[in-house]
Amino acid sequence: MPEQIPEDSVGLVTPRMMHFDAPLALACGRTLEEYDLIYETYGELNADKSNAILICHALSSDHHAAGYHSMEDRKPGWWESCIGPGKVIDTNHFYVVSLNNLGGCKGSSGPTTINPATGKAYGPDFPIVTVKDWVESQTRLADNLGINSWQAVIGGSLGGMQVLQWTIDYPQRIRNAAVIASAPKLTAQNIGFNEVARQAIMTDPEFHAGRYNEHGVVPRRGLMLARMLGHITYLSDDAMRDKFGRELREGSINYGFDVEFQVESYLRYQGQSFVDRFDANTYLLMTKALDYFDPAADYDDDLGKALAGARSNFLVISFTSDWRFSPQRSREIVRALRNNNHNVSYADIESPHGHDAFLLPIQHYLDVFGAWMSQLVKEVSA
Amino acid sequence: MPEQIPEDSVGLVTPRMMHFDAPLALACGRTLEEYDLIYETYGELNADKSNAILICHALSSDHHAAGYHSMEDRKPGWWESCIGPGKVIDTNHFYVVSLNNLGGCKGSSGPTTINPATGKAYGPDFPIVTVKDWVESQTRLADNLGINSWQAVIGGSLGGMQVLQWTIDYPQRIRNAAVIASAPKLTAQNIGFNEVARQAIMTDPEFHAGRYNEHGVVPRRGLMLARMLGHITYLSDDAMRDKFGRELREGSINYGFDVEFQVESYLRYQGQSFVDRFDANTYLLMTKALDYFDPAADYDDDLGKALAGARSNFLVISFTSDWRFSPQRSREIVRALRNNNHNVSYADIESPHGHDAFLLPIQHYLDVFGAWMSQLVKEVSA
Repeated sequence: MPEQIPEDSVGLVTPRMMHFDAPLALACGRTLEEYDLIYETYGELNADKSNAILICHALSSDHHAAGYHSMEDRKPGWWESCIGPGKVIDTNHFYVVSLNNLGGCKGSSGPTTINPATGKAYGPDFPIVTVKDWVESQTRLADNLGINSWQAVIGGSLGGMQVLQWTIDYPQRIRNAAVIASAPKLTAQNIGFNEVARQAIMTDPEFHAGRYNEHGVVPRRGLMLARMLGHITYLSDDAMRDKFGRELREGSINYGFDVEFQVESYLRYQGQSFVDRFDANTYLLMTKALDYFDPAADYDDDLGKALAGARSNFLVISFTSDWRFSPQRSREIVRALRNNNHNVSYADIESPHGHDAFLLPIQHYLDVFGAWMSQLVKEVSA
Repeated sequence: MPEQIPEDSVGLVTPRMMHFDAPLALACGRTLEEYDLIYETYGELNADKSNAILICHALSSDHHAAGYHSMEDRKPGWWESCIGPGKVIDTNHFYVVSLNNLGGCKGSSGPTTINPATGKAYGPDFPIVTVKDWVESQTRLADNLGINSWQAVIGGSLGGMQVLQWTIDYPQRIRNAAVIASAPKLTAQNIGFNEVARQAIMTDPEFHAGRYNEHGVVPRRGLMLARMLGHITYLSDDAMRDKFGRELREGSINYGFDVEFQVESYLRYQGQSFVDRFDANTYLLMTKALDYFDPAADYDDDLGKALAGARSNFLVISFTSDWRFSPQRSREIVRALRNNNHNVSYADIESPHGHDAFLLPIQHYLDVFGAWMSQLVKEVSA
């Protein structure tokens, strides 16, 4: 619990739910006849509705990007370091919208919500959703909020992929695009890690082909393993060395299979606590959305062609020690944009923190990101 | 089955078993009262027994390093690329000894062999063994073969760690040491990956605290996941891109959780086939031996001090794209050796193949390794 909420926080926030009746045709060929999206907003929409910013979330994240849900909350939203009054994404100037994507497990329609056709939770029957589907659902959220065009769409990791898809599918509705610690598509190694995570979940005997809730169980082991593995890929080798080294939990080796090294303790804790706050079917869906993302595939595998119609100004940021989505992957995006004479700022931020860096208050990162955002403030105020 | 055995192969080989009656006190505090080691030899021991070479194996490997066990064998031993008449480790000149380490599952005493005290397989009761224990057991094998001093001890990965330990514990018994694609100790990231693999095995409901054989089952899922994850770390990102890219098994996305990308197919196949040829308790033991290896720990964390007493000539080889044991880790070994004025040759071999490179016939690697070995031939012939 925060003793008192810091002045540079958006403070107490309440998520809202929006219901959509119009059917949504998905890339997989199926249709969601109706659905809900849960979202939060920070700051005030201005009179001409020109100051709206959309935040797109990553794999295991959600709509709660900033502020606190109650005075009892121990932690603020996941991007508190960047969103708030006077911060990089300055809620004194912008109206920030953050949603939980379709297929999620934090309130939007997904495996854990009720399928109106059956009156029971969707479970594994929730359709596979793609980045493109998410962008489509986000346009409808924008429509209902009266936002014709975003001053910016911003996202890190899988969130950055949604930003890219926005610039391709709705170039006239996104004036600025910030793609952080992301990639134009996964590599075979990325897909390999996702596949190990999925197999961990799907081969857990308590997975029951995704119908674990009906059996009153949860595939705890599988979800724990998926998260442990994920965590290793979010951190750099150096970051793990600095954080844990070869430190032993009890000072000496005990020649057994209980926790010995601090890094084991950390990973087990991260894995176990994840099980209590995340849904296994959602995890599967999110990894598939990552695997499938490849906007160049429809353009002769030419990312430049895919992005040729974009009209946004771009900010692309990578982090030196990020090996999940390495700087090289960001530079592929930058090259494709520059070849098309797009306005693009690019920074590779020195950081030892691996992929996780995009969530951390790294001064050079905040400076670069903040400078780009302050231009956007001027446009809005003008 | 080889149509006919190639001329540069050692040909048909028959493993031999050696029994040891003298108790072996282990680092963990327990004692093996008696044990067996299975081994193969290639080439002939010369009159003064000066041409013997010991091969130390890696995590999931064994004593069958070269040649064929029968004309029906589809594949030769695991280091056929380097061991044979006229090859880098030239069996026309050397007497090569290759064993399965204690705790293994291919014939030497380990979880799958009979515990003489109970008449039942050891299973999880086999003691935890360390690299130091292995070296100790290998000295006894040498004693019984009449080999007072090795012309060389050679190993890759975990095998390289055994080589280092030999130079520290028995400097007078190892004249030359080749440490390939190895490290002076694991990083937190390395330990993290091992811990995920162990948790995959140990949380498999069919693990039964290691007594799966008594239950007539095998922790297939866990062992499969461990191997899938291992494989990703043996290959480089680039190697996986070259090998699989984002190629789809059936040409198009099918929006489901069956195998879609070729890389998924490869990993599942590797994982599933591993289950039929490896033991889960052994896998746990081998990863612990890796985690514990840290010879500098007894010398104020000073690797130079640990290696100060070594008398061997060293060859250290790393591979540019190896991120499991990166070139940086090999250079730590080289620095520690050079600071002590040891004779050390070092090469960082350009290769896209990741950690697996040490098993592959890469020309520059074979040239460098072969040049160093040809010096050893001269010493033996002289």
